[in-house]
Amino acid sequence: MLKTVKAMVRYFMSVVPFRLGPALITTAVLLALLATPVPDGLKPAAWHLVAIFLTTIVAIILKVMPIGVMAMMAIMAVSLSQVTAGSSKAAIADALSSFSSPLIWLIVAAILISRGLKKTGLGNRIGMGFISLLGRRTLGIGYGLAICELVLAPFTPSNTARGGGIVHPIMKSIAGAFGSDPGEGTQGKVGTYLALVNYHANPITSAMFLTATAPNPLVVDYISKASGHALHLSWTTWALCMALPGLLCLLLMPLVVYWISPPELKETPNAVAFARSELARMGPLSGKERVMLGVFGLMLLLWANVPALVLGDAFTLDPTVVAFVGLFALIITGTLDWDDVLGEKTAWDTLIWFGALVMLAEQLNKMGVIRWFADLMRDAIIASGLGWPAVAAVLVGVFVCSHYLFASTTAHISAMMLAFLTVGVQLIPAAYAVPFMLMMAAGSAIMMTLTHYATGTSPIIFGSGYVSMGLWWRVGAVMCVLELAVFATLGSLWWSILGLW
Amino acid sequence: MLKTVKAMVRYFMSVVPFRLGPALITTAVLLALLATPVPDGLKPAAWHLVAIFLTTIVAIILKVMPIGVMAMMAIMAVSLSQVTAGSSKAAIADALSSFSSPLIWLIVAAILISRGLKKTGLGNRIGMGFISLLGRRTLGIGYGLAICELVLAPFTPSNTARGGGIVHPIMKSIAGAFGSDPGEGTQGKVGTYLALVNYHANPITSAMFLTATAPNPLVVDYISKASGHALHLSWTTWALCMALPGLLCLLLMPLVVYWISPPELKETPNAVAFARSELARMGPLSGKERVMLGVFGLMLLLWANVPALVLGDAFTLDPTVVAFVGLFALIITGTLDWDDVLGEKTAWDTLIWFGALVMLAEQLNKMGVIRWFADLMRDAIIASGLGWPAVAAVLVGVFVCSHYLFASTTAHISAMMLAFLTVGVQLIPAAYAVPFMLMMAAGSAIMMTLTHYATGTSPIIFGSGYVSMGLWWRVGAVMCVLELAVFATLGSLWWSILGLW
Repeated sequence: MLKTVKAMVRYFMSVVPFRLGPALITTAVLLALLATPVPDGLKPAAWHLVAIFLTTIVAIILKVMPIGVMAMMAIMAVSLSQVTAGSSKAAIADALSSFSSPLIWLIVAAILISRGLKKTGLGNRIGMGFISLLGRRTLGIGYGLAICELVLAPFTPSNTARGGGIVHPIMKSIAGAFGSDPGEGTQGKVGTYLALVNYHANPITSAMFLTATAPNPLVVDYISKASGHALHLSWTTWALCMALPGLLCLLLMPLVVYWISPPELKETPNAVAFARSELARMGPLSGKERVMLGVFGLMLLLWANVPALVLGDAFTLDPTVVAFVGLFALIITGTLDWDDVLGEKTAWDTLIWFGALVMLAEQLNKMGVIRWFADLMRDAIIASGLGWPAVAAVLVGVFVCSHYLFASTTAHISAMMLAFLTVGVQLIPAAYAVPFMLMMAAGSAIMMTLTHYATGTSPIIFGSGYVSMGLWWRVGAVMCVLELAVFATLGSLWWSILGLW
Repeated sequence: MLKTVKAMVRYFMSVVPFRLGPALITTAVLLALLATPVPDGLKPAAWHLVAIFLTTIVAIILKVMPIGVMAMMAIMAVSLSQVTAGSSKAAIADALSSFSSPLIWLIVAAILISRGLKKTGLGNRIGMGFISLLGRRTLGIGYGLAICELVLAPFTPSNTARGGGIVHPIMKSIAGAFGSDPGEGTQGKVGTYLALVNYHANPITSAMFLTATAPNPLVVDYISKASGHALHLSWTTWALCMALPGLLCLLLMPLVVYWISPPELKETPNAVAFARSELARMGPLSGKERVMLGVFGLMLLLWANVPALVLGDAFTLDPTVVAFVGLFALIITGTLDWDDVLGEKTAWDTLIWFGALVMLAEQLNKMGVIRWFADLMRDAIIASGLGWPAVAAVLVGVFVCSHYLFASTTAHISAMMLAFLTVGVQLIPAAYAVPFMLMMAAGSAIMMTLTHYATGTSPIIFGSGYVSMGLWWRVGAVMCVLELAVFATLGSLWWSILGLW
């Protein structure tokens, strides 16, 4: 009898396209939330939205189905949740609202542009160039990868495209050249070390430029909102603020990883020759590489707001417009063709899941949930009687650590950052509010260090198999603490020198 | 010398990814429009928008590059056109606005759902069933599709859901069963003919029932307003008025399309036997086919607004929500997987090009261009001193033809119809006002025939690739004239018999 039931369950599990256990847990979470009495201060519709949001996040963390499907479920749930209120038209408009967000299309365009970097081979050339300069020791190659990330970061608003799509293939080809491959017991030679450096360069560079990771513009928006529009970070201000502490982190990171997880092969006398021969084999820049380089240069100029500096504020271009101009330039020069664009599944996947998560965060805000949560936090922290430095530390610490629960920095930032910033601004003396907000901004990227599902780059590098999960989490925790410490000390000093507080 | 120049031009033309001649013509059109003085009553920004719109349409007609690229160019142009006004943020928000339109996502979802019909084999089965009943001649299948549309029309208030979501996948399966597929040079066998019949059934059935397309209730409202509430069309009156001319159009349409664009395969003597043997070979419905059938049945019930009829108006579901429910049902049952969704390039292509065209039409309206055009018309007609029959003909003709500028009937009707009706009622003797208003009502659906972006159904069927743009526009013009003629003659007679004038 039990055997038959077991066999039936096993058959059912093999047939359903989702993971049954996680699906049941997710459903239980949804039912439990819906059964919970609506908390004081929230409308029932707002609480239902919280239930939809938390269920979606749980489903994403537990990987019930691909994240895009869970996002579609959320869109559908929001569309249906107001049916009995007779406002199906308003509900579907709400549910689709974020698909016209310039932020979403910036990411889509950036992913499409990064395809050009890979397609033309320019990404590979850039990598080899750095290695030919820095590749005499494994540590040197590590620094080469980190610099590679740093150079690409201002141009690649998708940290996944940069760390996973451009630098990771270079890192893999280097490890392969040294006979260090995962699954053959040789990954320890240089692979594990380089994969970790490849990964940990990603959060640091993401913190350094407004255009280095997708949710950074969101961070700017939240900081502006929380500060009552007193602190609005431009591309240049952001880059300036993060430059010094970011560079120190980037300098320390390959050394610290070297110390925790040393490569077996420390001297790499052939790397320079390998890179040089690769560069020689590539020959001079091809026409398409030149176009790609030109488009990158143009985009950097525009993202750095050069036209406005020269011609006046009227010529400030929205970053999304810049990305569209770059993408269009690649297409009309034949560097990318339209079929490349339509076939870039990652772009459409991101459009949908990222769009849905941004929409949920917007709806939570619109429904007053964020406000309510911020009030709750404020009351708890006020009741605790902590001094403001402790308040700031608790806020940043809790915010960063809670990323263990999230599979996307955007989801995390959309859901929690505005609330934490608002509480902080209320409780921290105005004179110290700026460094607190900049710490939150830095933390929102540094938290990517923590897990193998923290951001899009993580599953790509982790999935290559160079690094075990235990080592990944151990290095992640160390790097997180170290980087927060650098930003809190050197960062605060630097921001004070810049006259920001 | 000349030879060298010729060789250089030829080389250049072989290198650029666009068609050089059309690109030059398009550029000339843009420059000519920009050089034209801004017409009285329009702001410069509005005139620039007209220039962008007309240039985009010319670029699409001349096929400078894929339509999606031209659409992206339009989005970029709109984003950049307000740069010197210092409102890049507002401009990009405008340019992306239609990507959150429920109509656009209804189209995307319908395309994705139709993939399920193909994947499960249910589409093929339905197609074979159709052929086994009507398949002796291609013309017979055409009539079968038209009857299909007619039967569904009273219950499907979204003509996109009906023509694009339900009938088109069946049509594709039938064409596939005859080995007539786009992009393989075989679409001419039966595919082109059936796609055109599939499409042209849509405007006719939309004209026939108040509940057959979304803007019809708006038309009723405008007619009521323009006539000083003298003519209020109920569901039954509408259906009665349109029945006879509508049925004649539906009877003529497959024949006329047969004459303009005859299928290569006219007699299909073996088709019935083949279809029967295929049906026998398929055996009983598979599990996934049952799911597909169930989802289709569910969507039909929801699109026909059955929940609202049973449970009250509060349960009216937006057609896009219904499509999302259907798509989600297909995914969680494993009928479609997420990779199918992301790999469906047509969906993403349509999202971009149709979205851009809807956006341009919305912006033209927002900028006051449509209002300006309607006023100009009114003044010209009053000044012309034409007799009332000419006035009526000009009003209906101009109203219908101006749909070449619109990507949505709802946008067109809400922007222009009331103005045209009001002018007509002022200039046409009261005794003849009713047939004029009914002609306007019929024309508001018949105008869907004109372009491949006229209504939501158009991009879905056009996007499948059976019909070239030139043929689409040619057949559209012929059908439009023919149907207007049928309504003007038989319609007027019929309405007189009904005692309406």
